[in-house]
Amino acid sequence: MSNYFKLKKPVGIAAYSSCGGPKEENGPIGNYIDIHFKDDKTGEKSYEKAECKMFESVVQNALCKSGLKKQNISFMSGGDLLNQIISSNFSARDLAIPFIGLYGACSTFAESIAINSMLLSAGYGEYAISVASSHFSTAERQYRFPLEFAKQRKTTSQWTVTGAGAIILTSHKKDVQVTDVTIGKVIDFGITDAENMGAAMAPAALDTLEYHIKNSGNRVEDYDYIITGDLGKLGSDILLSLAKEKNLDINNRHIDCGIEIFDSCKDDCGGSGCACSAIVITSKYLRMLSEKKIKKILYIATGALLSPISTMQGESIPSIAHAVTIEGTI
Amino acid sequence: MSNYFKLKKPVGIAAYSSCGGPKEENGPIGNYIDIHFKDDKTGEKSYEKAECKMFESVVQNALCKSGLKKQNISFMSGGDLLNQIISSNFSARDLAIPFIGLYGACSTFAESIAINSMLLSAGYGEYAISVASSHFSTAERQYRFPLEFAKQRKTTSQWTVTGAGAIILTSHKKDVQVTDVTIGKVIDFGITDAENMGAAMAPAALDTLEYHIKNSGNRVEDYDYIITGDLGKLGSDILLSLAKEKNLDINNRHIDCGIEIFDSCKDDCGGSGCACSAIVITSKYLRMLSEKKIKKILYIATGALLSPISTMQGESIPSIAHAVTIEGTI
Repeated sequence: MSNYFKLKKPVGIAAYSSCGGPKEENGPIGNYIDIHFKDDKTGEKSYEKAECKMFESVVQNALCKSGLKKQNISFMSGGDLLNQIISSNFSARDLAIPFIGLYGACSTFAESIAINSMLLSAGYGEYAISVASSHFSTAERQYRFPLEFAKQRKTTSQWTVTGAGAIILTSHKKDVQVTDVTIGKVIDFGITDAENMGAAMAPAALDTLEYHIKNSGNRVEDYDYIITGDLGKLGSDILLSLAKEKNLDINNRHIDCGIEIFDSCKDDCGGSGCACSAIVITSKYLRMLSEKKIKKILYIATGALLSPISTMQGESIPSIAHAVTIEGTI
Repeated sequence: MSNYFKLKKPVGIAAYSSCGGPKEENGPIGNYIDIHFKDDKTGEKSYEKAECKMFESVVQNALCKSGLKKQNISFMSGGDLLNQIISSNFSARDLAIPFIGLYGACSTFAESIAINSMLLSAGYGEYAISVASSHFSTAERQYRFPLEFAKQRKTTSQWTVTGAGAIILTSHKKDVQVTDVTIGKVIDFGITDAENMGAAMAPAALDTLEYHIKNSGNRVEDYDYIITGDLGKLGSDILLSLAKEKNLDINNRHIDCGIEIFDSCKDDCGGSGCACSAIVITSKYLRMLSEKKIKKILYIATGALLSPISTMQGESIPSIAHAVTIEGTI
């Protein structure tokens, strides 16, 4: 059975919003981000509460832009990197919108867009929100070391993005629409270094890319950009070589959200975290589609499905990639 | 907008399977469980690997019962209680079935049935698997104390169920079908005691119950059973009183999976964990529906969306409940 699905009818994008901290604002796409928090803690008592504030701010901002109220939204799906996705769950409590909790690590935003689009295209609801968040300091605390420890980072490490992105999808026709999706498989090439997630995720990105291109009947040239999130520099290089072996030359069209969001000369191997591709898509690329500067993107978000426990138990890093096509109607 | 959805067409149940450990086998519904593991560790090196084995065993057993192959399955959705849902992600890697990772704590199984049913009813795929697992020893390690510490349990504590449950859903007509769903809201009544999750979840169960009954146009009497999972004894008592205040008298039809699975005189306040209601539904109640002993159940799975971090930070326990109706065609 196919896990590629052409939507029964395209699903419109009614509004979108992004937020980030100071490091994201100072990065190459900083000017595209809607809400800038001058302080990573956003005035809250903990980084966890700050992440909730970011999650809620993009949902509220997207609602405001669309002119919709919470009562118009049938459901929201999304997630984050924290154990038991508490940023999302606590935010969903405060927002009081029916909630589908997802966990796909950094692939969560595409997973959410895929599910919401399929449900809306089938007539289940009129408006639905896709949302994802991450925070450097909540992720470091949970996955790695206390910030105060100031651990030396490896050259392969990626920097978890602080912020959130949200899209309001709708069953109504809009200028920019989601048209098809691929639900990814979990792929594991045996990488065990939790500080080299780009290498672990590249094979999953390739698997979904190849499958989506083949089943959609499209060619690489039909997309203005093929946007992965978030392989970083090293992972992107691996993807490009692997794709070449499969006769998929994506060099001229490939963008990686992990590379886009930070200045790659300074910041490790690029960005990561659920918010990385969520911000890049909802700031720069949806805007370019809305302004008709580009016509069609294939967004493939990748997730490294490890946990600190699985790493300590010597397990390798399984990875997944979900894909959605987003395109202008003209 | 409504978050109650009548399915565009009913979604059939092609097969189902359950597994459990020795404590589950010795409980009141032990005889209904398909696969009994004589040892909680199932011969593996860690409890985490044992949980994966249980997850995979119910998927493989359901496939075997249905006569289907993995290649027939369009996607699988599900989850577990562990950080980054590693039991599910590692199992999805080994099963090589396209995967939608969910996190809804103990509500995950109903969340999965709801999403899969909506997608299949819309023509997205022919077969899909819903699955959830939990394990007492992996949950204790992560949420509470080392087993060796032998902490005294409170009278309000629930015991995490060890095992898994899986359903293969299909777009084809079957004798037993899913007909409607409600996606729940996150509800928080301010309970902060992580050892009293039944009390935290009861208001979420009530919210979804009331909403589902009202929007489906059904009456309480139309269901043979209204099955919550898993409030335990205390949470069930709270639900019954709260429901009575809303003029919903469910006393004669209410069953709680947390009470059903263990002998309630001995085992704390009842069972909990994603596997609790997954096992009770896929062992006893789907069989009763298949054998035409009952006609219609409303399955409302509840999840306590806390994390050890949120508890340590003094946060209350947000909860959610998702509902699905499962009924015989005759």
